[in-house]
Amino acid sequence: MPITKLRISKRGKEMPASPIRKLIPLSDEAKKRGIKVYHLNIGQPDIPTPVEFMNAVKNYPNKVLEYGNSKGDLRLIQGMVEYYHRKNILVKPENIQITTGGSEALIFSIICISDVGEEIIVFEPFYTNYNSLARVADINLVPVPTKAENGFHLPDKKIIEKKITSKTKGILLATPNNPTGTVFTREEMETIAELAKKYDLFVLSDEVYREFIYEGVHTSIMNIEGIEDRAILLDSISKRYSACGARIGCLVSKNKEVMDTALKLGQSRLCSPSIEQYGAIGALKLPEDYFLAMAEEYKRRRDTCYAELMKIPGVICQKPSGAFYIMVKLPIKDIEAFAKWMLTDFSLNGATTMVAPGPGFYATPGMGKDEARIAYVLNVEDLKKAMRILAKGVEEYNKIKG
Amino acid sequence: MPITKLRISKRGKEMPASPIRKLIPLSDEAKKRGIKVYHLNIGQPDIPTPVEFMNAVKNYPNKVLEYGNSKGDLRLIQGMVEYYHRKNILVKPENIQITTGGSEALIFSIICISDVGEEIIVFEPFYTNYNSLARVADINLVPVPTKAENGFHLPDKKIIEKKITSKTKGILLATPNNPTGTVFTREEMETIAELAKKYDLFVLSDEVYREFIYEGVHTSIMNIEGIEDRAILLDSISKRYSACGARIGCLVSKNKEVMDTALKLGQSRLCSPSIEQYGAIGALKLPEDYFLAMAEEYKRRRDTCYAELMKIPGVICQKPSGAFYIMVKLPIKDIEAFAKWMLTDFSLNGATTMVAPGPGFYATPGMGKDEARIAYVLNVEDLKKAMRILAKGVEEYNKIKG
Repeated sequence: MPITKLRISKRGKEMPASPIRKLIPLSDEAKKRGIKVYHLNIGQPDIPTPVEFMNAVKNYPNKVLEYGNSKGDLRLIQGMVEYYHRKNILVKPENIQITTGGSEALIFSIICISDVGEEIIVFEPFYTNYNSLARVADINLVPVPTKAENGFHLPDKKIIEKKITSKTKGILLATPNNPTGTVFTREEMETIAELAKKYDLFVLSDEVYREFIYEGVHTSIMNIEGIEDRAILLDSISKRYSACGARIGCLVSKNKEVMDTALKLGQSRLCSPSIEQYGAIGALKLPEDYFLAMAEEYKRRRDTCYAELMKIPGVICQKPSGAFYIMVKLPIKDIEAFAKWMLTDFSLNGATTMVAPGPGFYATPGMGKDEARIAYVLNVEDLKKAMRILAKGVEEYNKIKG
Repeated sequence: MPITKLRISKRGKEMPASPIRKLIPLSDEAKKRGIKVYHLNIGQPDIPTPVEFMNAVKNYPNKVLEYGNSKGDLRLIQGMVEYYHRKNILVKPENIQITTGGSEALIFSIICISDVGEEIIVFEPFYTNYNSLARVADINLVPVPTKAENGFHLPDKKIIEKKITSKTKGILLATPNNPTGTVFTREEMETIAELAKKYDLFVLSDEVYREFIYEGVHTSIMNIEGIEDRAILLDSISKRYSACGARIGCLVSKNKEVMDTALKLGQSRLCSPSIEQYGAIGALKLPEDYFLAMAEEYKRRRDTCYAELMKIPGVICQKPSGAFYIMVKLPIKDIEAFAKWMLTDFSLNGATTMVAPGPGFYATPGMGKDEARIAYVLNVEDLKKAMRILAKGVEEYNKIKG
């Protein structure tokens, strides 16, 4: 008597495919046809990974590539402590759990603080993988909208407060934000902290773009007083050392129960990749001016990208203060169809531009349909070309489909 | 008005700490006191990682350590296809999802096939991390006991059948098994397949110890006819290339829906570690005699370990046919207390032996209290010493505490 029916899980079915990656088959086909594709769809920096990282990897000393400590390589943890001290974030080794990328830091922290069906507040638009990781953990993201007109800054406290229910376990934010580039002010961080205290919530702060600040000052959640037991910092070396493929991140908290649980989660997957941890130990020896030079380069790219966007009639966006993304409203009704068309039907002098469609950055259905995320991760010259192709594409598309 | 109370999640609290790793603080303290600790507690081979792996790592060619394909490096997937063909497991690239270790292959497959509160049948004793990964996915493992007296082979089909309910989504087994070393026969694999067909279940087969077979023949789940759409193979390079710290594994299935879901899960964490994937591509070029020599070495170790165990009065165990573990019943009432005592109070000529307490390998409370898992991952000479220390420890402990 067959009781069940062979099927994959509901959560597996509901999990969204990556909106950033799902157009890749179309870009692969375009490349096969000889079209050059400028990738503004993914936050993959073109900056060489520092030789300090690569040399450490080449000099990995062990003969046996053993399981590492589930908490992370202790030398890496010490390196992170020193890095944070340079940023005036005063943490100790026991406050750090090394994770396999920032993604794992996020899933670990979600599992630490919430059970199935519970809720975490997020600010829309947000990093698209928050959606899929929420499905993995089977919790609900409750979106609070932020607006381009307002520079994607936080709405009034009361609007956030209205979303808090008995199921709410935390507030998740990213500063600088992906996809908006917004750097939240100290006042905004303090507002979040007040809400966390008032409603007994955790605050998860994704600060992987800390080193990419062009105006204003970065405020870490770890430096907001009165929420030491509620603050969980999520971090990654991917962006700041241009080492996305290394899969090295960390979860930082002064809450011992959170750290104990994170370690148990760490044990459940044994350890993070050993050789890349060793590379990260090398990278952490880089002086501060490494970041300054990098931020200058990205500032030039932002300025180029923004200037080119402003030339497109009907565009709405604000100049972002950090990270390396612009979330832009384009004069396009269906951005998904447009992004596909750019890869399948359009090219200018043998080249086209790929962007990430907006809807993937929202939890609210119907939002972001005329928006795209642009990652300004190419050098200024290529970026100019890519943006001009985009501008021409918008013009042509509206002639044909408008 | 505070609605909720700051607390970590129920699933976080319920997650077990690794029984294999939780005694590490005690062994660290023993080492600080100058005691040599023989580690028979963890499946960490002492065999050098092949130079083919290490050289590939040293020659990693890319200047930018970019995000990789979420499905895995296509060259690695091709290498795996060829490896499987050599094992007469005929799969195609589209049947393989590279994962960050075998652990991730398991959690991906659990999430693919089951929702919160659903059930997966396992055979007790089993690999301890199945317990923690079940907590991550919030599903229930339903244990079916296997017995030392029976070589830990499967019980009668009817006994397994009794555990199947409307919530059962799959059967999870490991062959060769960790911690018992049992290699399931083709008949046993076919019994599982029959049940899977009768009750519309998936079969998850953990085959990471495939290359460690001392008697009998390994039967892969991929080679059982009639369940092509139900079979999910979980694999890892950790053991067979002595590269545990690399975190490279894979999930293999001919079920397209499973593979599509696994890819979405892959996208949610972006990619597996790039440099270590590159190392694995190097290792996959090793000829078959690499495995033969390794299996011979482990066979000697198994024989040594078993012979030494047989000298201890009151021991019950069967000689395992595969993997590198023996699950042994010792004449000890409380194995946890004994394992701790070996680290805190006992030494022989300045050395002691660490074992993994049995209860962590069971889901049924109260089971395994007089059992230990011994990983014979040391060279024959050290293994002899370690086993004699263990024997002496058992004798002393029973004198004092018996």
